[in-house]
Amino acid sequence: MSKTRSKQADARGGDGILRVVPLGGLGEVGKNMMIMEYVSGNSHDSIIIDAGIMFPENDMLGIDYIIPDFNYIMDRLDTIRGVIITHGHEDHTGAIAHVMQHVDAPVYGTLLTRGLLEVKLESAGLLDRTELVTIKAGDTIQLGPFQIEFFHVTHSIPDCVGLGITTPVGLVVHTGDYKFDHNPVDGWPPDYAKLAEFSQRGVLALFADSTNATVPGWTPSESEIEPAFDHIFRNAPGRIIVATFASLISRVQQVVNVAERYGRRMVVQGYSMVENIRMAERLGYLKIPDWMPITVSEAKELSPREVFIMTTGTQGEPLAGLGRLSTGQHRNFEIEPGDTVLMSSHPIPGNEEMVYRTINKLIQRGAEVIYDPLASVHVSGHAAQEEMKLMINLVRPKFLVPIHGELRMLHQHAKMGQELGIPRENIAVVENGYVLEFTADSMTIGERVPGGYVYVDGAIVGDVGPAVLREREILGRDGLVIVDVLVDSDTRKIVGEPEIISRGFVFMRDAQPLMNGAQARIEQVISQTDNISTRALGRNLQDALERYFYAETKRRPMVFVFVHAV
Amino acid sequence: MSKTRSKQADARGGDGILRVVPLGGLGEVGKNMMIMEYVSGNSHDSIIIDAGIMFPENDMLGIDYIIPDFNYIMDRLDTIRGVIITHGHEDHTGAIAHVMQHVDAPVYGTLLTRGLLEVKLESAGLLDRTELVTIKAGDTIQLGPFQIEFFHVTHSIPDCVGLGITTPVGLVVHTGDYKFDHNPVDGWPPDYAKLAEFSQRGVLALFADSTNATVPGWTPSESEIEPAFDHIFRNAPGRIIVATFASLISRVQQVVNVAERYGRRMVVQGYSMVENIRMAERLGYLKIPDWMPITVSEAKELSPREVFIMTTGTQGEPLAGLGRLSTGQHRNFEIEPGDTVLMSSHPIPGNEEMVYRTINKLIQRGAEVIYDPLASVHVSGHAAQEEMKLMINLVRPKFLVPIHGELRMLHQHAKMGQELGIPRENIAVVENGYVLEFTADSMTIGERVPGGYVYVDGAIVGDVGPAVLREREILGRDGLVIVDVLVDSDTRKIVGEPEIISRGFVFMRDAQPLMNGAQARIEQVISQTDNISTRALGRNLQDALERYFYAETKRRPMVFVFVHAV
Repeated sequence: MSKTRSKQADARGGDGILRVVPLGGLGEVGKNMMIMEYVSGNSHDSIIIDAGIMFPENDMLGIDYIIPDFNYIMDRLDTIRGVIITHGHEDHTGAIAHVMQHVDAPVYGTLLTRGLLEVKLESAGLLDRTELVTIKAGDTIQLGPFQIEFFHVTHSIPDCVGLGITTPVGLVVHTGDYKFDHNPVDGWPPDYAKLAEFSQRGVLALFADSTNATVPGWTPSESEIEPAFDHIFRNAPGRIIVATFASLISRVQQVVNVAERYGRRMVVQGYSMVENIRMAERLGYLKIPDWMPITVSEAKELSPREVFIMTTGTQGEPLAGLGRLSTGQHRNFEIEPGDTVLMSSHPIPGNEEMVYRTINKLIQRGAEVIYDPLASVHVSGHAAQEEMKLMINLVRPKFLVPIHGELRMLHQHAKMGQELGIPRENIAVVENGYVLEFTADSMTIGERVPGGYVYVDGAIVGDVGPAVLREREILGRDGLVIVDVLVDSDTRKIVGEPEIISRGFVFMRDAQPLMNGAQARIEQVISQTDNISTRALGRNLQDALERYFYAETKRRPMVFVFVHAV
Repeated sequence: MSKTRSKQADARGGDGILRVVPLGGLGEVGKNMMIMEYVSGNSHDSIIIDAGIMFPENDMLGIDYIIPDFNYIMDRLDTIRGVIITHGHEDHTGAIAHVMQHVDAPVYGTLLTRGLLEVKLESAGLLDRTELVTIKAGDTIQLGPFQIEFFHVTHSIPDCVGLGITTPVGLVVHTGDYKFDHNPVDGWPPDYAKLAEFSQRGVLALFADSTNATVPGWTPSESEIEPAFDHIFRNAPGRIIVATFASLISRVQQVVNVAERYGRRMVVQGYSMVENIRMAERLGYLKIPDWMPITVSEAKELSPREVFIMTTGTQGEPLAGLGRLSTGQHRNFEIEPGDTVLMSSHPIPGNEEMVYRTINKLIQRGAEVIYDPLASVHVSGHAAQEEMKLMINLVRPKFLVPIHGELRMLHQHAKMGQELGIPRENIAVVENGYVLEFTADSMTIGERVPGGYVYVDGAIVGDVGPAVLREREILGRDGLVIVDVLVDSDTRKIVGEPEIISRGFVFMRDAQPLMNGAQARIEQVISQTDNISTRALGRNLQDALERYFYAETKRRPMVFVFVHAV
């Protein structure tokens, strides 16, 4: 990286440093939160872009979700001029309440994004004290030294924006999550003109979505799945159950459009689906004919061919609508032979087993299940390789910072940038927490700020760290044994029989010989020791039992020993 | 299903019943083991087809692998005339030692399959007392009433066979794992002629591989990945590290062929890769030029462009070669900038997170990582939809039984069978344990035999069942708390302070207020009770603490309480 700072920069008015730090995101760089700061002399101003959560990986046992570690922001609270949310998805909005507990600045989002943020702030009791500002694509706002122009991008939720941020050192473009969809369901294509205009003005740096950087070609338009939907609604012999993400408003609209063509009535199931549809309709993002929605009891009166159920659970979540249907645990409906289930989604990596299990159970109950790749019933919301190249060529930035993706995706995005003529040293592939510093003609990768991510488990934020997860892993793999022993306080001989309890280790009914052996080991250890404290005896017993259980079972349960002298 | 048994059947000599039961396989029907029996009057003969293991899903905590529950076979030990292994993969061979502990009958397999079985039987101390019979494609053997013709099929390990089994009620064809590869690396295409000949004779039932039933089209030939390999070997600026499955002998051969072209020397790493290459070379399945293999120290002397490393670990296993390289824990080598890693594999569903984590870490260390879909460096070993249709049309069976796949795949396979003219009632989509009964003109789906699968954890087979797994899940999710309390044997007042231990629950250093609250609850419960047994007091304390912890943390750790009167 060039570390030269030229006089030219100062001449343009940018004698300070622009600093950008991607935060949080389980390796998905800058996905959930970024901070942008401008420091010049005594002035220090910053903005936060997005405040989302991540979902845990399979080996993060017991974790509900993960929020970015924003200690870096905590040290700069008085510099924050605004919080900008690019769109309404959980991985960009889910941590808003955690952030707004600390930050005293307005929150900016489009109408739909605002609606989704309000729900979260309300349930955290923060709605009253948060200033929410509705913006729309095309608007420009000034936050300290940052002039922010919002431009429309297409994605898998309506009303998404990217950001053109004019800073004292130059123009920075942030794509948000995007794809280039020429035929979006809401009829509002991406704002190519604005991107071209940015390019004319000269773009210092492009921060661009890398999610699909390993996917060749061009992500199909949302409208390309309509024929598959039409085919299903035309031919299904009975009820149709459509499952998709509750936030995928455009998908709901597509289903409603097709259902209208065939006169099917809709019953919506699942809290998040009901709430999202209600809000999207109220705010004008979703048009549903008056005759279409029906109640559960109305649905049961009608013939199966006149009904479809709109629900959630495409990731195999056992408690969501589709999961409950697959196990016969749904409150209102049961899967019957003749039902057609349409899963309009892809499994998120890590969820495949759960998703396929759900599909198998639905088939077992007699449903016909249609999912990708059996039919084209889902498209991604993110740009594929050719779109990412188009973005780079439209914007023509001096510096490229691939964001929103794992390292392997950023790396691939960087290679595309190089192919398009951006010198390798002008591309920054960094992980979360690295400080990127910009002047008008340089980009420097600085130190990594301390931090990582914060686990949320139940009602508590951040008390579960790697040590606790490691204990959960051991307990989850091999279980535990607890031994409670009494010894005579004078003779140190064992009193009665030791109590031995195990959980998650062996099936106790079959394990009597093993436990008899353990008891013999306990008695042997006690008979061979004298004149040591009960604590020391406890440690000896623990050592002996750990060795014994490993020798007998090749497992390493956690062993706890309590010794009391009586 | 037709339940009619005609006189015709008897006329053909089949007055008995042919029974086929797929066993084991975590929902992958008949993948790991099948039993075929013929019962007529007092005679009862059977054969076992395959004896494999399955790997656990992500939520089967602590399980090493799973073997089929073969209690059904245990009840018929004296009827077994032979054990036939179709090919050398773990999911068809891995349980051989468990089975041969009980079964007294010869084991039949091709030369390579036999080699792989010998290793397993040897390490279980069963090699001496097991009769292993080497067969080859084209051979015919007679086992009781079963005449078995072995025919060559192509798959992702050499020397695979399918089975044409002439039984008293008709000819049954079992495909084994297969794809129709016109250009296999070993130059030995599938035996289409034999399949056509079966069809001429008339096939009662086809048991066919369904693994890729949801994949449209035709699985590419093994040879189609060669251009990608060539490109990498021609252009890699430094060392190449090739990772693939140790059993994928043909892939190793392809890599060796390309390396020969560019004069690269090979160092093999990882126990299973070393062993498999050694055996495959000894048995003539692998040809490696004499000059190519080198030792680790020789590899370190040469320039990086003259070397490639052949290793395992494509599924993200942390202890396999690639996993150790990705974390800097490899005994012999370290990843350096300029290295190219070629992952010739697909992630098995459930392994994606681990695989991508490994790739990210390799990139972090400076390697260029090439994997599907970035380049065509892997093809499946299983037939896709068009091949499955070809199989059905070649064999033209009366009855179709989709096997080797989850229910959703079998279901799709069945739909293809219907499209090709097999009546729905002549297709059996069943799960493991269902008894299929055949006469010369009928197929009946019978009862499901009890059983499922048997977990192997450490040194013990089968003692871990759903109850133990459920305990592991709870412990893995929320951890545990153990409380040890002393009370005065007369006054029942608390003596000293209770000892409170937690693991996997909260980070103890931060949890002092929580534990103080727990202690207060304990003291309160004890002070409010009198004249009850220490056992009853323990139960009260456990209840109170479970409620307390849930209220405070929304988590449900396992709580254990020990109360002693002193």
